[in-house]
Amino acid sequence: MITRDDCARRDAEDALAPLRDQFMLPEGVIYVDGNSLGALPRATPARVAAAVQQEWGDGLIRSWNDAGWITLPQRVGDRIGALVGARAGECVAADSTSVNLYKVLSAAARIVQADESAQAPIAAARRVIVSERQNFPTDLYIAEGLCRALGWTLELLETRAIVERLSGARGADVALLMLTQVNYRTGALHDMAAMTALAHAAGALAVWDLAHSAGALPVDLHGAGADFAIGCGYKFLNGGPGAPAFVWAHPRHAGRFWQPLSGWMGHAAPFTFRPEYEPAAGIGRFLCGTPPVLSLTALECGVDTLHAADALGGMAALRAKSIALTEAFIALVDERCAPLGFAVASPRDARLRGSQVSLTHASADGASHGYAIVQALIARGVIGDFRAGAASDAHGPALPDILRFGFTPLYLRFVDVYDAVEQLVQVMRTGEYREARFNERSAVT
Amino acid sequence: MITRDDCARRDAEDALAPLRDQFMLPEGVIYVDGNSLGALPRATPARVAAAVQQEWGDGLIRSWNDAGWITLPQRVGDRIGALVGARAGECVAADSTSVNLYKVLSAAARIVQADESAQAPIAAARRVIVSERQNFPTDLYIAEGLCRALGWTLELLETRAIVERLSGARGADVALLMLTQVNYRTGALHDMAAMTALAHAAGALAVWDLAHSAGALPVDLHGAGADFAIGCGYKFLNGGPGAPAFVWAHPRHAGRFWQPLSGWMGHAAPFTFRPEYEPAAGIGRFLCGTPPVLSLTALECGVDTLHAADALGGMAALRAKSIALTEAFIALVDERCAPLGFAVASPRDARLRGSQVSLTHASADGASHGYAIVQALIARGVIGDFRAGAASDAHGPALPDILRFGFTPLYLRFVDVYDAVEQLVQVMRTGEYREARFNERSAVT
Repeated sequence: MITRDDCARRDAEDALAPLRDQFMLPEGVIYVDGNSLGALPRATPARVAAAVQQEWGDGLIRSWNDAGWITLPQRVGDRIGALVGARAGECVAADSTSVNLYKVLSAAARIVQADESAQAPIAAARRVIVSERQNFPTDLYIAEGLCRALGWTLELLETRAIVERLSGARGADVALLMLTQVNYRTGALHDMAAMTALAHAAGALAVWDLAHSAGALPVDLHGAGADFAIGCGYKFLNGGPGAPAFVWAHPRHAGRFWQPLSGWMGHAAPFTFRPEYEPAAGIGRFLCGTPPVLSLTALECGVDTLHAADALGGMAALRAKSIALTEAFIALVDERCAPLGFAVASPRDARLRGSQVSLTHASADGASHGYAIVQALIARGVIGDFRAGAASDAHGPALPDILRFGFTPLYLRFVDVYDAVEQLVQVMRTGEYREARFNERSAVT
Repeated sequence: MITRDDCARRDAEDALAPLRDQFMLPEGVIYVDGNSLGALPRATPARVAAAVQQEWGDGLIRSWNDAGWITLPQRVGDRIGALVGARAGECVAADSTSVNLYKVLSAAARIVQADESAQAPIAAARRVIVSERQNFPTDLYIAEGLCRALGWTLELLETRAIVERLSGARGADVALLMLTQVNYRTGALHDMAAMTALAHAAGALAVWDLAHSAGALPVDLHGAGADFAIGCGYKFLNGGPGAPAFVWAHPRHAGRFWQPLSGWMGHAAPFTFRPEYEPAAGIGRFLCGTPPVLSLTALECGVDTLHAADALGGMAALRAKSIALTEAFIALVDERCAPLGFAVASPRDARLRGSQVSLTHASADGASHGYAIVQALIARGVIGDFRAGAASDAHGPALPDILRFGFTPLYLRFVDVYDAVEQLVQVMRTGEYREARFNERSAVT
């Protein structure tokens, strides 16, 4: 049995424990939803206030140069890039994850088409984007949008079927493999190097969404040989609600790729105001319009909270703590919550799991109480979230309702894990979840 | 001769004068660059701080519902829409101007293609987007990007040639007319109704960029019968650096249009997490990814500063003051600056002019000192900006260097106009512009 004292002892021994002081966490709250919206860094309010009052208010238009607004996308992009195995100059912060995904899918599609047109005769026209049916929906919607624009096909498969689809001659019509490294529902973690190699062996390119992995675990884009990547600024990067996203391209594609959202910030010389578009030499061509400076400034503070771990072992140390936290949570759930109908829906092998653990709940009365349980937990100050399941259909099996718990190693303690489980037990023992108020709208993942 | 006392008297009589108190303007600065980046509203710092500390810091993920983040794009969109002749529910705030332009051009192109495919045989394949060579470059780059994606052609013409291009049978291959209502260099104002009617008579759709007109003058999208419009949040709407932009579609296109940036926020039911995209019924389908909440919150404050004029005559009253300010500036330039080599490059007929006046300067020594003069003015606290000209080429005539002065009626006084001209005279009389330091980078328009 893991006791609260055990957890307190582990916190006392945790070299990363001081990193928690970087955050302003509300009194009485255990925040296990940093995989949805990261907590507020202590440095952010003053930094944003300075951007508003000194940079905008006093500096006015001069701040594009004097406060360095004009290079913010590159500056923040480099800081994020250093967390995901990118080199300086390969990554920019811009737009939303969805918009960036459209850019990289367009660029990757263009490369595939250019490679084909260089061959004669073409062995096989590659016009298929393969992804997982369980991928985060906006990724699927964006791929659907691009496929509709290009006359291509989006094929959504169960994870296991993807390997088969890309093997041997069956992959000859596949242009792109689009995957999210960590699944938003289950936390299941792909082997990026293996799946990229699979795509490449099939002659396809690999596009990765790092939404639930950037800042959550070590990512090695170069090591994996990935082609393009995008990711989210407001989850484990703590950039604030709707923070700009980021985008990366492998340098082997530099100068080759093109994308249709060719706005002026991606021009080689935006301030010459020439009527013809000429893309910037490197990753800069993935910029489009004028960046939202206030949100980007907050994102910079968020990314700084991760680099504060650089001297303490960096992402590898954060990953070790993340695994320890999720292992402790799983052990406590097994001990104390299994008898209450809960089961772990995430991979039990930590090497196959991101920084979250999802649970299913089977009620004795057969009804689904997952949403109510999460609401009751929130009322007790334990903030996780709920994702509804789906019935089986022609395309795939049924998905269960899940309760999601994200474990951000920067600010979560082992005692928080213990207390979260204790509250979950109390919610069930008291039956108070039956009184939980329902909210019409769901929260943003 | 206009005297400073005349100007002070006009300020004393100005019913809109109290609106200036809504802004935090630095001491000693005359800000005539609100057409590039609007000034900081007094309400913004506290509002943004509350969004950071209370909504994000304390509310955390709960604020998507509790603080109404989830409806911010619609709420701010409606407030902007009311300034440009849109009805409630027709406008959303989202993404950048460039990204929104890609959406509306895509949607409009799709409508043209759908209309064609409903005819048999097709009278003429419409595959041309017509715009002005002097349009703001990012508009041209985005249209170029879409044309490249669609295999269409972008034709850039001088303004006068557009009328001819769209007249009679010559317009039969034109799909879209894309114009910016107020030219960013000269401030020249299009007759939106007339140009839209011209496009419609040719069988094309009209897409309008309101970057320099929303919040600067009354816009009547419905009255003009426009098809789609987008605009900028950080100029006359005072939303802050890189504030999100807005997008509007005429309701006659509602439910018909489609755009490829089909992110989850534009889904009919984003929180059902279904793998298939189903666009929201109305303008909501122009949303894409998660919105940058902090920047959107600042934009809401900016838009509020315009609605503060509602009880004082609204945009019509602001326009009257804007015209009075620019007329006073032109009169003073004519009186005092013409002998120093300055000439008005903007239309002299106020009905053909937005809320800015651009000047050219011809030096006695033949050299171009426009940039140095603007730098010297900024050193004296008069903040306008400079836009470099261009040599003539095969595509069009030469463009002169210009000094741009934007006149935001919300916070500029008649004495500011007088003092700005006085400083310009001093910069020339002292010759101090010859010492002005050059800055490598230009400011963002």
